[in-house]
Amino acid sequence: MIEMAAKAETIGQCVEAVRSKRPLIQNITNYVTVNDVANILLASGASPIMSDEPEDAREIAEIAQGLTLNIGTLNEQIMRTMLEAGKVANRKNSPIVLDPVGAGASSPRNRAVATLLNQLKLDVIRGNSSEIRALMHGSHSTRGVDCDVADVIDERNLDESVRQVKQYAAATGSIIAISGAIDLVSDAERCYVIYNGMPQMCSVTGTGCQLTALITAFIAANPEQKLEAAAAAVIDMGLSGQIAYGHLQEYEGNSTYRNRIIDAIYRMDGATLCEGARYEIR
Amino acid sequence: MIEMAAKAETIGQCVEAVRSKRPLIQNITNYVTVNDVANILLASGASPIMSDEPEDAREIAEIAQGLTLNIGTLNEQIMRTMLEAGKVANRKNSPIVLDPVGAGASSPRNRAVATLLNQLKLDVIRGNSSEIRALMHGSHSTRGVDCDVADVIDERNLDESVRQVKQYAAATGSIIAISGAIDLVSDAERCYVIYNGMPQMCSVTGTGCQLTALITAFIAANPEQKLEAAAAAVIDMGLSGQIAYGHLQEYEGNSTYRNRIIDAIYRMDGATLCEGARYEIR
Amino acid sequence: MIEMAAKAETIGQCVEAVRSKRPLIQNITNYVTVNDVANILLASGASPIMSDEPEDAREIAEIAQGLTLNIGTLNEQIMRTMLEAGKVANRKNSPIVLDPVGAGASSPRNRAVATLLNQLKLDVIRGNSSEIRALMHGSHSTRGVDCDVADVIDERNLDESVRQVKQYAAATGSIIAISGAIDLVSDAERCYVIYNGMPQMCSVTGTGCQLTALITAFIAANPEQKLEAAAAAVIDMGLSGQIAYGHLQEYEGNSTYRNRIIDAIYRMDGATLCEGARYEIR
Repeated sequence: MIEMAAKAETIGQCVEAVRSKRPLIQNITNYVTVNDVANILLASGASPIMSDEPEDAREIAEIAQGLTLNIGTLNEQIMRTMLEAGKVANRKNSPIVLDPVGAGASSPRNRAVATLLNQLKLDVIRGNSSEIRALMHGSHSTRGVDCDVADVIDERNLDESVRQVKQYAAATGSIIAISGAIDLVSDAERCYVIYNGMPQMCSVTGTGCQLTALITAFIAANPEQKLEAAAAAVIDMGLSGQIAYGHLQEYEGNSTYRNRIIDAIYRMDGATLCEGARYEIR
Repeated sequence: MIEMAAKAETIGQCVEAVRSKRPLIQNITNYVTVNDVANILLASGASPIMSDEPEDAREIAEIAQGLTLNIGTLNEQIMRTMLEAGKVANRKNSPIVLDPVGAGASSPRNRAVATLLNQLKLDVIRGNSSEIRALMHGSHSTRGVDCDVADVIDERNLDESVRQVKQYAAATGSIIAISGAIDLVSDAERCYVIYNGMPQMCSVTGTGCQLTALITAFIAANPEQKLEAAAAAVIDMGLSGQIAYGHLQEYEGNSTYRNRIIDAIYRMDGATLCEGARYEIR
Repeated sequence: MIEMAAKAETIGQCVEAVRSKRPLIQNITNYVTVNDVANILLASGASPIMSDEPEDAREIAEIAQGLTLNIGTLNEQIMRTMLEAGKVANRKNSPIVLDPVGAGASSPRNRAVATLLNQLKLDVIRGNSSEIRALMHGSHSTRGVDCDVADVIDERNLDESVRQVKQYAAATGSIIAISGAIDLVSDAERCYVIYNGMPQMCSVTGTGCQLTALITAFIAANPEQKLEAAAAAVIDMGLSGQIAYGHLQEYEGNSTYRNRIIDAIYRMDGATLCEGARYEIR
């Protein structure tokens, strides 16, 4: 229990570090959810910048403290842009977080993920369980960008899921974050099993994309404890989803919920996060 | 009257079918309003996915149940992407809905619409009256993406407008949906004349784009009654605009209204839609 | 004092002119904040249209009353599109407003700004003080797209800043608008020093981009007094930021603030603007 209390304090410190360091986070991301990605980064205390072409991306990578790669609306130029920025980030030892949006749903998305995994060192890979399973097993069954029911992680398959995610983290050398009813954040040794969050967050487009960028900000501001930082970002998002849901009126729906989640990230502090965090380490 | 009550029930069933079937809707659409398009699809119960390049679009079209084509920020790659996805959708007999944003305002937009009409079978074409008039008459007078005052459909020109829209539906083989103070949704035989909606919806960018995607979801979930499904989507959007307007505070404006409209779509059920629908069939 | 009261009345008239003339404003802008740009233009009474490729941009420029150029997510095609539309706007004597997003942060951005300054007559250039300093001094120190602390304009360096901005306005022949804790809007002769606005507006992505487009609408509707119109747009944005902040609940943050700022622009009228304006002319 003492260890858990110390961990919870660490989680709280991670959120505060983003506010005090204000890391510049470069995002090469899809145009569907890019505005919310920018606003959630600002809400967390980070400073967002977006790049769309290789030369710009390369130079911005030189001044940024972290890089988010998101393949949601992929094309050839975006792919080149990602690789250019990624090489600079790797050279500088600046963290990279990948969101393999829709992996398993099309060949270009699968090839893109394979190329990025092959050519870059990725600090974190975050997706829903369908996307991460597609990466782990090379399967090709993703139902669009939303999680397939067959892939849900719950109490019944939790032990097996934890085992698999540790194995995949060991194989890739990346921290793996899987979003779902239960969230997992794992390296080869330890897996945070996180119970914060609300199922209604799935009705807001881009909560996954937003979380991925938030992880980039958190590990950029907490480079000495990346696993804790990634877990803290996931808890921050989940707890914000719970707080936001509590403020919804009976006539409000997913669009207002979108705003309230980002608002809750904006208002979050270390003490609140520490108090509201619901997780275990396996 | 009995027929109308039965129809109203059908309208209500259409909204419920989207929630129970959760169709995967592929959208090749402009980057201005794409986020709201995604959120309104989620609000309706559908699952959105976006594609930006031809190969991805082709493969996603294989797994999607409906396709939205929107030419708001057109370029050559988007055009190729639309044709590739559209051919797959046609082969699968999966519905396609076209939004000819700004048709009549520039040559590339006019050519794009002509190409799409020529090469694809389109289930529905939805635009404002200026855009649809540009398609019908080949005229070149659209005032940007907003409706020209001269093109407004009202009580004075309603009979003539209904006649013309049926004629154009017969000529194209598509259902035609015209948005305005009065909305028309017509095939060659029957025209729904819809009185839901608020003029203030024009002050929110992308309500037209959102409606187009909503129609795709509704006809994907109700393939056996496409005209009713398209009308139900138009009524759903209009009634949601009325409900949303009722929740606005005196200091709130178009940006909050945007959220409340999507919220109202999220909260809509068959009984509410059935109760609030204001339309006649001509 | 009489002169100031007359000026304040002019400021109020500028906001009303946008509502009565409803200028069509073409925007070639980044995909991060484009939706908010469209909604703030609609909120002001203007009509937005976006272009993504050269031929479309050229033809839309023929029917538009103003043009916004924003380099936030630059690529080669966007650059060609900007030049094509800009040449038409210049020939028609239709106003162009440039937002040099991230100028100083990368070579492509610096080259783009140099090309646009060289090939087009720009009516207004609006940026934060880091971006404008990068333009003035050719320096290369911008911290991403946010303002560097070292570049802040405050009471201590106000005299010198006013002198420099007038000098740069004279050198370029453009009105220069610098956003910050204190806003400056200047031509070679007169500088509006504006004290409206809230520091919390920096936590909302795209408030700068939105302001730039708002300036385009204001000078398009008030071509006979461009300096006053640009200042009126800056005051409108700042005062709306103040009004919006007053409506925030203690649990709301930057995402709801985004909506409330646009809402306040939507509700603004000449009398309110005239009453709330806080500025001096130097």
